[in-house]
Amino acid sequence: MHAVVLEDGQLQFLTDYPVPRVQPGWAGIRVKTAGICRTDLELINGYLGFSGVLGHEFIGTVESCEDAGWIGKRVAGEINAACGNCCWCRKGLGRHCPFRTTLGIDRLDGCMADYCVLPIPNLIEIPAHISDDRAVFIEPLSAACEILEQLSPKASQRVVVLGDGRLGILCAWVLSTVASDVTLMGHHPEKLALSAWNGVKIALDGKSCSGADIVVEATGSATGLAEAMSLCRPRGTLVLKSTVAVSAEVNLAPIVIHELTVLGSRCGRFQHGLSLMAQHPGMPLERLISNRFPIEAASEAFHQAARNTAIKILLDL
Amino acid sequence: MHAVVLEDGQLQFLTDYPVPRVQPGWAGIRVKTAGICRTDLELINGYLGFSGVLGHEFIGTVESCEDAGWIGKRVAGEINAACGNCCWCRKGLGRHCPFRTTLGIDRLDGCMADYCVLPIPNLIEIPAHISDDRAVFIEPLSAACEILEQLSPKASQRVVVLGDGRLGILCAWVLSTVASDVTLMGHHPEKLALSAWNGVKIALDGKSCSGADIVVEATGSATGLAEAMSLCRPRGTLVLKSTVAVSAEVNLAPIVIHELTVLGSRCGRFQHGLSLMAQHPGMPLERLISNRFPIEAASEAFHQAARNTAIKILLDL
Repeated sequence: MHAVVLEDGQLQFLTDYPVPRVQPGWAGIRVKTAGICRTDLELINGYLGFSGVLGHEFIGTVESCEDAGWIGKRVAGEINAACGNCCWCRKGLGRHCPFRTTLGIDRLDGCMADYCVLPIPNLIEIPAHISDDRAVFIEPLSAACEILEQLSPKASQRVVVLGDGRLGILCAWVLSTVASDVTLMGHHPEKLALSAWNGVKIALDGKSCSGADIVVEATGSATGLAEAMSLCRPRGTLVLKSTVAVSAEVNLAPIVIHELTVLGSRCGRFQHGLSLMAQHPGMPLERLISNRFPIEAASEAFHQAARNTAIKILLDL
Repeated sequence: MHAVVLEDGQLQFLTDYPVPRVQPGWAGIRVKTAGICRTDLELINGYLGFSGVLGHEFIGTVESCEDAGWIGKRVAGEINAACGNCCWCRKGLGRHCPFRTTLGIDRLDGCMADYCVLPIPNLIEIPAHISDDRAVFIEPLSAACEILEQLSPKASQRVVVLGDGRLGILCAWVLSTVASDVTLMGHHPEKLALSAWNGVKIALDGKSCSGADIVVEATGSATGLAEAMSLCRPRGTLVLKSTVAVSAEVNLAPIVIHELTVLGSRCGRFQHGLSLMAQHPGMPLERLISNRFPIEAASEAFHQAARNTAIKILLDL
């Protein structure tokens, strides 16, 4: 099958990659569209030492499954393939299962291929009223929603989101559904212009942003933490969304001196993302699609995705 | 007066340092005993660029004060000299006042001298039943108590404290008053041996400590965070007590991947420390005194304090 494969840090487009075997309890999915995420770029740079098929954002159709009810369903899929038996899985927190593999990230071939496989409980059916080009955002939108599962911002709290990439914009949009004073701060005027929705304010620097109650660090940059610390009020909350591939020189004294609460925040429940998508049909997700390519042009697609001007690049299978 | 002064990174013992002027609303205190803290050693290494009289842990007697009721009282003093008027001060959080100076740490001469000055609201009277050598621990003990003001550990939660220095030992003792499974982890068997109290377990390495619900990082070392992250369970809480003077090479991805909550934790309310001291007269604070010197021997005292074998070194005035 067609597949975008990372091996020894090299990105390759292959046409003869073996179709994955569907194990009992798993489903085989014909992928229709996949998104390129910053994590994919970090994996290429060596993050987690991954090799295999890249990709963890997709929309597709179930083609093989022992539960016939799923066959032909349009689905997305939670990316963590959990064991289902450990104490984390039993608490519904399979995304922290210590035995998990992760689609296109950790020991499980990803979705930038004709087919991918996932455990059946990971599947989520996409309702007909949600288009493919919105549904493909379910993974990052759910990751943004995770913030709302970890803390409950008051409507009156001042929120600053750092980073005008796709995750930063989605975090700002999600937070604007509960807080009235949300500012997205970034360095790219053309991206910030795209983020206008639901009263989200934009800022090109931190002048108007200091003293925030909640700061979300979504820059994807190793230097984002220092800036985030400087914008957060004493005893404020700093949400870390970036898994930066490199170690950073960072002075953590401000966390102690200002007694900040730092919340690491990663994947979210797809059901949460899907509900939010349904509740806010006006959330302009499609606006974030910078470009799309057939999978044969994956190399050029990744090249564009690595540029700072791109927000979301899609690959069509 | 006698004073231990830091200037241009050089520690000096002076005999002709000017006695501080007591401003309206402040008190002048005759210092009896001062403690050397790791923060003092960091200040010598350049932390915060401080110059002036060192020292922020003390016990002494009020000699001059516009409120005559304080004269002659045996006191300790909260170290942050707050403005008293800002929004933080009005909330009783003067230790986060943006206009504060800090005794022996930030633009306010410290207590390693015959006299120091502090705002009157900072004074706390030491009851007669608490000896000088216990009372001199009120500042670090209150800093340890701050953890209990920020989170409420359940009795069943597993707590690991990293760092067998004085602050680590105090954090373990304080946490052992609410949690039943507290382990102190360090690399110095002779210090760990001193920490036995109230069922606190000891460990020389992390083998038995991983998967902890709460990890307190009190190593005072720039590398402590990485070890603390590795011992904390997914969605666990990591309390940062060290203000490390240097920037560290640290990969923060585990905070995001395991969705840890990191709590910066600094000074505490002295009343809290004093109450705990009174409730637990058996807490063997005096055991932590490694040595004591007259202030004239400050140089040798700091020399010993910088060695890893010392826990608490006192200076007598």
